[in-house]
Amino acid sequence: MPLKSTRGSNYPDWYQNVISVADMAEVSSSPGCMVIRPWGYGIWERIQRVLDDKIKETGHENCYFPLFIPLSSFHKKADNVEGFAKEMAIVTHSRLTMQDGKLTPDGKLEEPLIVRPTSETIIADSFSKWVKSYRDLPVMINQWANVVRWEMRPRLFLRTREFLWQEGHTAHATYEEAEKEAKTMLDVYAKVAQNALAMPVIKGRKPEHEKFPGAVDTYCIEAMMQDGRALQAGTSHFLGQNFAKSANIRFQNNEGKQEYAYTTSWGVTTRLIGSLIMTHADDEGMVVPPKIAPQQVIIVPIIKDKSQKEEILAYAHKLASALSSQIYDGEKLRVKVDERDKEAVDKMWEWTRKGAPLVCEVGARDIQNNGLMLRTRNKINTPDWKKVVSFDDFVQTVSERLGTFHQELYQAADKRLKENQRTDIKTAEEMQAYFSHQNSWIDGSEGKVAFVRGKWCEDPETVEKMKEMKISIRCIPEDQTHEEGVCLLTNKKATLDVIYARSY
Amino acid sequence: MPLKSTRGSNYPDWYQNVISVADMAEVSSSPGCMVIRPWGYGIWERIQRVLDDKIKETGHENCYFPLFIPLSSFHKKADNVEGFAKEMAIVTHSRLTMQDGKLTPDGKLEEPLIVRPTSETIIADSFSKWVKSYRDLPVMINQWANVVRWEMRPRLFLRTREFLWQEGHTAHATYEEAEKEAKTMLDVYAKVAQNALAMPVIKGRKPEHEKFPGAVDTYCIEAMMQDGRALQAGTSHFLGQNFAKSANIRFQNNEGKQEYAYTTSWGVTTRLIGSLIMTHADDEGMVVPPKIAPQQVIIVPIIKDKSQKEEILAYAHKLASALSSQIYDGEKLRVKVDERDKEAVDKMWEWTRKGAPLVCEVGARDIQNNGLMLRTRNKINTPDWKKVVSFDDFVQTVSERLGTFHQELYQAADKRLKENQRTDIKTAEEMQAYFSHQNSWIDGSEGKVAFVRGKWCEDPETVEKMKEMKISIRCIPEDQTHEEGVCLLTNKKATLDVIYARSY
Repeated sequence: MPLKSTRGSNYPDWYQNVISVADMAEVSSSPGCMVIRPWGYGIWERIQRVLDDKIKETGHENCYFPLFIPLSSFHKKADNVEGFAKEMAIVTHSRLTMQDGKLTPDGKLEEPLIVRPTSETIIADSFSKWVKSYRDLPVMINQWANVVRWEMRPRLFLRTREFLWQEGHTAHATYEEAEKEAKTMLDVYAKVAQNALAMPVIKGRKPEHEKFPGAVDTYCIEAMMQDGRALQAGTSHFLGQNFAKSANIRFQNNEGKQEYAYTTSWGVTTRLIGSLIMTHADDEGMVVPPKIAPQQVIIVPIIKDKSQKEEILAYAHKLASALSSQIYDGEKLRVKVDERDKEAVDKMWEWTRKGAPLVCEVGARDIQNNGLMLRTRNKINTPDWKKVVSFDDFVQTVSERLGTFHQELYQAADKRLKENQRTDIKTAEEMQAYFSHQNSWIDGSEGKVAFVRGKWCEDPETVEKMKEMKISIRCIPEDQTHEEGVCLLTNKKATLDVIYARSY
Repeated sequence: MPLKSTRGSNYPDWYQNVISVADMAEVSSSPGCMVIRPWGYGIWERIQRVLDDKIKETGHENCYFPLFIPLSSFHKKADNVEGFAKEMAIVTHSRLTMQDGKLTPDGKLEEPLIVRPTSETIIADSFSKWVKSYRDLPVMINQWANVVRWEMRPRLFLRTREFLWQEGHTAHATYEEAEKEAKTMLDVYAKVAQNALAMPVIKGRKPEHEKFPGAVDTYCIEAMMQDGRALQAGTSHFLGQNFAKSANIRFQNNEGKQEYAYTTSWGVTTRLIGSLIMTHADDEGMVVPPKIAPQQVIIVPIIKDKSQKEEILAYAHKLASALSSQIYDGEKLRVKVDERDKEAVDKMWEWTRKGAPLVCEVGARDIQNNGLMLRTRNKINTPDWKKVVSFDDFVQTVSERLGTFHQELYQAADKRLKENQRTDIKTAEEMQAYFSHQNSWIDGSEGKVAFVRGKWCEDPETVEKMKEMKISIRCIPEDQTHEEGVCLLTNKKATLDVIYARSY
């Protein structure tokens, strides 16, 4: 039973619909902010765990910096940096008092405080205190935190005023070491996207006009959503000495000379959950890749006759216990028996909407046959999505089935990315014609506007042209042909390969 | 080499000193807020992991609610609740603009937003939407978040404007179920304090005048610090229907009638790290209980001759690898080889200050003897704190040594708690005399003002009397004698046993 809105009928509505029926998040009474519900937050917790392990393996330590940044810290940055974001939450008072029967802000602060849009400035401040000598380097830290940017058109997970993220910040003694760090973290992001989120990405760097203000290089991973738009799923900035200069992060090198440190920063956000939805969800609801599923196997007892309740529950728990000792992705399986006082059919629909990978129905007949009815979420609408399997067979094959599930999700997304990345557009006119269409569901029949891989001449005039076409250069991909061709915006000669697309 | 300030010389300075030399946290450029450095944050991460597992085992799911709460949500609460806290951070603007060369708050909000001092109101708001029928109950959620209270006299970990915590919120269909939940979570806190933090606590409930405003009962765990003061280490509130009534959390019960839900809330904060310091740290610095130590074993290579560097490092890593496969507290050991380019003696001091449980020195002679020099942090200043052990013996006994380390910490703290809990004070006059002294380090010789266990008559006048004496009733402990005696504040007849103390 498809959702009220499907990918083909109304893609933006479908996206909101999936979030709602999967109980992942909801709009809150706090304007522009979201409530992340347990199923959505459970996915975030799994992403955190997988990524945090990699962040630690690559030599970083977690710490925590204040939520508030004094206004004066921003002055320097505002002066130096052109693209300084100005939309942010500002704390000006520290007390509520009752005035004329109304609670009113009182206790005006001497200096307003900014709710962090990023911790860049306050972390740089600490680095300048911590780093004195080359022996103090590298400093390699990360923090998991909430940040606030005053978005005017909020959308759940994609763009909310408050969101969750991790931000890594490092300082190094040499250019080479810092540049390598920025690239290493991009690799970490790409691997987590592919291996845990089953989401293929294109790795590259941003063109000059899309870089993080002040960065020497901004590296990024870009994913293709089911409407052909690009979503930037993670960024890693090599900042050279620019930030060290403005924050005065200096050290005595091993020759006794004062030198500015080389810094990096890198981050991913709860946006990743938005990208997961638009990569894997279908017209029935969410589909969660098993490695980051809060529950990988759900067992729903089918109790038609109350006298059988005890026996069926015992069987369900026996199955859960046998499954829980199986290992997938280096961890014990996450299995849940859904014992809630609800109709079994409603439970089945709920888990389909939520996208739990494997759902088992167990009833009286299954006990007799020592089996179960297995539903494999990603095979929905195919003949074998529901089938009877034996208890022992299922326990022995469950890890393999989850592995296959992950592979199938990845392959479907990878096929989509490859098939919808046009390389045959050769002139500015063809390009104009291609992007004159609107994006829609690209696996459906209606529209196929997605990515174009082609040449770019780097002329400043192209930036304006892209704005008019509502497209952007998503990245300069790692794999360059170095062959001469024609810029798809100006028809001038060009050798740089880039990815053009509409984006989130 | 003791710290600049010791417990005996200046207890408050000693506390700050430990935090600083152990690199746990520092004052930040954001007024009243702290930077939690990796060693401090690593301890918090371990506490989170241990507690989060228990929170999930007891049937709760994590989720996330917005940082900002619209001012209007507070009105109802301010009207209804006497002890409503008014010191909080208020966001009034959403943009910075340059005016007369100065960045200035702009974009005044129609409705001011409060930075959450707790998520009580916004979560109750969601509960009222989620709960319709008894089938939707219980709702059992938890969130890990930052909260803000505008403290005027901040102290690292104990009282900062921003702190980290978890807040659990649940709604139930019956009084009994909700009351049991509140008690269950108090038990979870007590067990985590004892089993993971090696910190004995007294379980009890707060007297009427110390309860969370609006709660039917506030349960708490109280720990004794080394200066004899009490520190409330966790609270769990049984809220009855009071909060459900003000937030309109209603459900149709199984007889078809509308009823208000019964709710609870419970939380612990980064204050726990303050309590850890004042429970276990000594005059040399921090001592971290092994179950929550970011690193349990540190290996410091002693390289006197550079030609031996490679061989010594290889030996250190061989040891690390053998230790890492050992299991303690259900997990693989956390071991680090400290290869930094610093003097070995400085490293040894650093790990002593940080309180890493076991530190191994390995040098050329140790390789010859297939051994190592073991330093056991909690035995400092005893004859056997430093001794040579063999490689194989150490690997085989390391888990047991960590277990003993934990036990010894716990026993020392438990002995302190028991020995400094006076039960022989029998009159108001004796009580007055006892608390006429100031608190100081109670294991030292100077002062012994700590806890008094005795009777309380519950007269309202006693509240004022306690204020004058700068003491409070920490809790009405679970174990009551039910014998009649004399109130230690009024000399009136009383049967209730309470714990009196000064507190943080």
